[in-house]
Amino acid sequence: MGKMENMDYECPHKVAIPPPKPFLQSLMATLKETFFPDDPFRQFRGQPGSRKLVLGLQYFVPILEWAPRYTFDSFKSDLIAGITIASLAVPQGISYAKLASLPAIIGLYSSFVPPLVYAMLGSSRDLAVGTVAVASLLISTMLGKEVSPTEHTKEYVQLVFTATFFAGVFQASLGFLRLGFVVDFLSHATIVGFMGGAATVVCLQQLKGMLGLVRFTHETDLVSVMHSVITQVHEWRWESGVMGCCFLFFLLLTRYLSKKRAAFFWINAMAPLTSVILGSVIVYFSQAERHGVQVIGHLKKGLNPPSITELAFGSPHLMTAIKVGIVTGIIALAEGVAVGRSFATFKNYHIDGNKEMIAFGMMNIAGSCTSCYLTSGPFSRTAVNFNAGCKSAVSNIVMATAVMITLLFLTPLFHYTPLVVLSSIIMAAMLGLIDYEAAIHLFKIDKFDFVVCISSYIGVVFGSVEIGLVTAVVLSLVRVLLSVARPRTFAMGNIPNSMIYRSIDQYPNAQHVPGVLILQIDSPIYFANANYLRERISRWIYEEEDRAKASGENSLQYIVLDLSAVGSIDTSGISMLEETKKNADRRGLKLVIANPRSEVIKKLEKSKFIESLGEEWIYLTVGEAVGACNFMLHTYKQNHAGVTFSAQDCNV
Amino acid sequence: MGKMENMDYECPHKVAIPPPKPFLQSLMATLKETFFPDDPFRQFRGQPGSRKLVLGLQYFVPILEWAPRYTFDSFKSDLIAGITIASLAVPQGISYAKLASLPAIIGLYSSFVPPLVYAMLGSSRDLAVGTVAVASLLISTMLGKEVSPTEHTKEYVQLVFTATFFAGVFQASLGFLRLGFVVDFLSHATIVGFMGGAATVVCLQQLKGMLGLVRFTHETDLVSVMHSVITQVHEWRWESGVMGCCFLFFLLLTRYLSKKRAAFFWINAMAPLTSVILGSVIVYFSQAERHGVQVIGHLKKGLNPPSITELAFGSPHLMTAIKVGIVTGIIALAEGVAVGRSFATFKNYHIDGNKEMIAFGMMNIAGSCTSCYLTSGPFSRTAVNFNAGCKSAVSNIVMATAVMITLLFLTPLFHYTPLVVLSSIIMAAMLGLIDYEAAIHLFKIDKFDFVVCISSYIGVVFGSVEIGLVTAVVLSLVRVLLSVARPRTFAMGNIPNSMIYRSIDQYPNAQHVPGVLILQIDSPIYFANANYLRERISRWIYEEEDRAKASGENSLQYIVLDLSAVGSIDTSGISMLEETKKNADRRGLKLVIANPRSEVIKKLEKSKFIESLGEEWIYLTVGEAVGACNFMLHTYKQNHAGVTFSAQDCNV
Repeated sequence: MGKMENMDYECPHKVAIPPPKPFLQSLMATLKETFFPDDPFRQFRGQPGSRKLVLGLQYFVPILEWAPRYTFDSFKSDLIAGITIASLAVPQGISYAKLASLPAIIGLYSSFVPPLVYAMLGSSRDLAVGTVAVASLLISTMLGKEVSPTEHTKEYVQLVFTATFFAGVFQASLGFLRLGFVVDFLSHATIVGFMGGAATVVCLQQLKGMLGLVRFTHETDLVSVMHSVITQVHEWRWESGVMGCCFLFFLLLTRYLSKKRAAFFWINAMAPLTSVILGSVIVYFSQAERHGVQVIGHLKKGLNPPSITELAFGSPHLMTAIKVGIVTGIIALAEGVAVGRSFATFKNYHIDGNKEMIAFGMMNIAGSCTSCYLTSGPFSRTAVNFNAGCKSAVSNIVMATAVMITLLFLTPLFHYTPLVVLSSIIMAAMLGLIDYEAAIHLFKIDKFDFVVCISSYIGVVFGSVEIGLVTAVVLSLVRVLLSVARPRTFAMGNIPNSMIYRSIDQYPNAQHVPGVLILQIDSPIYFANANYLRERISRWIYEEEDRAKASGENSLQYIVLDLSAVGSIDTSGISMLEETKKNADRRGLKLVIANPRSEVIKKLEKSKFIESLGEEWIYLTVGEAVGACNFMLHTYKQNHAGVTFSAQDCNV
Repeated sequence: MGKMENMDYECPHKVAIPPPKPFLQSLMATLKETFFPDDPFRQFRGQPGSRKLVLGLQYFVPILEWAPRYTFDSFKSDLIAGITIASLAVPQGISYAKLASLPAIIGLYSSFVPPLVYAMLGSSRDLAVGTVAVASLLISTMLGKEVSPTEHTKEYVQLVFTATFFAGVFQASLGFLRLGFVVDFLSHATIVGFMGGAATVVCLQQLKGMLGLVRFTHETDLVSVMHSVITQVHEWRWESGVMGCCFLFFLLLTRYLSKKRAAFFWINAMAPLTSVILGSVIVYFSQAERHGVQVIGHLKKGLNPPSITELAFGSPHLMTAIKVGIVTGIIALAEGVAVGRSFATFKNYHIDGNKEMIAFGMMNIAGSCTSCYLTSGPFSRTAVNFNAGCKSAVSNIVMATAVMITLLFLTPLFHYTPLVVLSSIIMAAMLGLIDYEAAIHLFKIDKFDFVVCISSYIGVVFGSVEIGLVTAVVLSLVRVLLSVARPRTFAMGNIPNSMIYRSIDQYPNAQHVPGVLILQIDSPIYFANANYLRERISRWIYEEEDRAKASGENSLQYIVLDLSAVGSIDTSGISMLEETKKNADRRGLKLVIANPRSEVIKKLEKSKFIESLGEEWIYLTVGEAVGACNFMLHTYKQNHAGVTFSAQDCNV
């Protein structure tokens, strides 16, 4: 090693053309990298059959994996969190079921079976399962057009179950097809904006409960909500407002205290449940429900009846049910997975998109057979779960159990729970989730990420959850496509006292090599950028020629293309290189290629580009390429007659 | 240079953090690269005012640029081509106008004004302007729903002009906004498939004329056309068929001859016009039109009346007209630009997407004021133009002049032109354009490009032009996104007798460095691949640990990430690096970074990643990074007590 005694030309290391792989083999390798990058089969290798079975079960049913490590301490936290979210599940279930034009009790049923299924199959520790506002609204608008929910209630409910079934099948099949990576297209910036926006929207929705309003807009955007609130000033109930503000103050205070002293953690975790009990007791004794404080009221007793026979596969509206199922399934999945990822990011663990999709799908298939409608991971309930200190999916089991007990025995106890307390709990949870510090961080580091984040926020707050998500995802994709369509190119220079060549932009001390233009291309060469790169390279050439002329240097003789960062190339890219070579030939310049990568050199060879360029003009490093160019330049100078000397000649 | 006498540790070169640029300045630079990569202002620099004006005019009106260089030889070719396409323009104009439910004469008008405008503004030398089948069909289906073309003909025609006007405005504004690069997303592979498919479809359409059928399907796909042809076996006219086959044979023979001997070029170029004259004469003397050979028939005389006052801006259907204008404008633009690019690729010149869009827009705006409806660059007419040997847009002027003369005086002469001759001309042109050799070339070099090409072909032939285009563009985008979502990672080794490190996959002789895992990442680190890369890197680590254990080597101590090919990073990417570092720390490994690029190091510094990693763990080259790791490993071995020695210490 270290034979480079001086800058004189040195015989280069050869660029290897990797041996051709059979097509099938390389296809299999690509498919594996695309769909199984985490190599889930690794743990199975070399294990006995019984162990393989256990591992396989643990893979598909995550609860088998983490249950043995589950501790009593975690259970205490999950118990509190589970009871807290159960106390939310009752009023939320009722109000969302109303949004979906369904009987109220179906909203309660939907908080019993699906959470149990999710707890077994899901990979998020914080997600609280329940019905979601957006999907509920969509169901009633899309299905309500076909079958009137008031006139043909039975048929409508059957269609809702059928749509839920297809939503589940669709979600699960996405997971089985290993398309979980679609979820990766929700970036961190998107999620910060989405969460902030969703928190703002949910807070705004709580104004209904806080002010004791009876009528309220079904829209979620800021303008509609504020319009609805302000036009109803005369309907505001001060009793409700005062009670709500007191509880909100109490909840925020407990959180502040628990943040100041770790020992006060329990105060914060117990606060929501305490509020529910306290609120119910106050209403019971003060009879505040007669003074404008709304309470949950009477609920029927009894568990979910089975509904598998109600699935209307023979209905004339089956196609509509399938369509509604797929549309709401996608939206519920996007919301649920985004929520799951958000909280996983907070707690610094990772959820597996494929497992999540299967879990969501299974819980909706099971739900559709047990009188539940479409469930997902609602943001508000998950935030409360997280805030109450949940540790694992056991909080969902606790919630389901609590809902079960409620359905069986306790519905009368919730009679006096004031809705305003539930609104306060939700609002307090939301206020902690508008992460403006993260937005400032994004602004400092990456302006474009900040734009994505703010667009997502504005989209959610002024439009809707979907508009926000779609805007942010589209912006992110446009950015990816732009970076592919407009890759950077850099002129490189020699770092003094080395054989290293780096971008002159980044290393101002890098020295320009007279007569040689060294260009680095910063992305795969594709159809999307081939045209641009051809134009950009020819611009580099004439700019360099102008510069050389202006400074009286040697005229340009060689163009070295450093392809180190070019991971792949397609046929449009190869045409671009061919045209660039022709263009260079016309101008009397020699094209030299440095460090082509395995995929690139393979394709260049197959397309005969190497043949037409000459194998001796491909070098392993920029240093060796420039060395060869310099050697040639000197040889040429010494022999003015113009000796034809090829780099090949020196291969001793 | 060449101080590296042995593998011993050497003080590294420092990685430069480029000086921060003001936000506005870097934004302007990015915008310039995105929208003005060809630097159109360059030619204006340092020129006197009058010269600037001339150059500016030449930029916006390309004819001013090339007209002075135009030769008489080119004119001879353009004259032949222009007359040939004019003879096509008459029957095509009539049949497409019928498709659009418009009076036949409007189809003729549309071949007079728009070609003149295009000849002045367009940048393609082969494009022949005319009405297109797909857009014509769309106009009649979309507008026909609102206003009946048979009952309210006047209002319908006014709405068509209005829609054409908005299509033009939309197309021109895309060009002025410099969004021409959108066209780059049509790759070479897409175009090969699209052209082959379009040629097949147009050939199939000619079966109508060849077989003398009167009724024919309005669909373009293979199944509908073959169904239409086969169910009408009893309607086939042998006179027409025989005449068509003879002319087709004649045309193919002349092409074959002209290909064999360059001197026979004129035979080929004159063949279509000869066929038209010969066909007309034969029909006139044989009275073949009475024996099932269809002829063009009677046409009214007179030039385009102005229609600017007919634009229905006050119509209650204005919104529909705008919608139809935008939809058909996009489709016509996509077809026209794809066709223009295809032929430019054949002749090895380039068209400017922005100029094309402005030219298309202007010709439709002008057309809507002169009784023309939507025009674009139809594939069939352009192919005939190309085959007849056109040299420049002058062939469009010739065509327009010929159509003008036809409109004024010659309509009776075309009375006896048999449609079957026109079909033969189109078919002969198409057969030369199914480029199966290019498809085989794609198959050999890039399997994915081949799939895109074949999908495009199948989409056009079995679906429609739009289905084919959309399929191919979507497939291409999915490929780009997949390559971004699943970048390659490579383990690197030392090339013997050098300080060079390269992928072990490509260079099987590259030597593994014990205790050090060197990984190269092959793409920008984005939200879309951050999750994947985190998983993939941790898989590399445990695979390497397993390997080291199995082969009894030193256990893994360092992970060197070579970021040479990482052009940019976003906040999700930075989080990924932070997590990878934490993960490495937990396993007792040290993370080392080699050659971070300008944008990456800037963001790593801003986000304090460098601080947490330690500046001394960032090296300019992989060689220096590995050198430092080896030095540390040896120092550690020699001092079993475990001396804490940092790379920083050696900075003399």
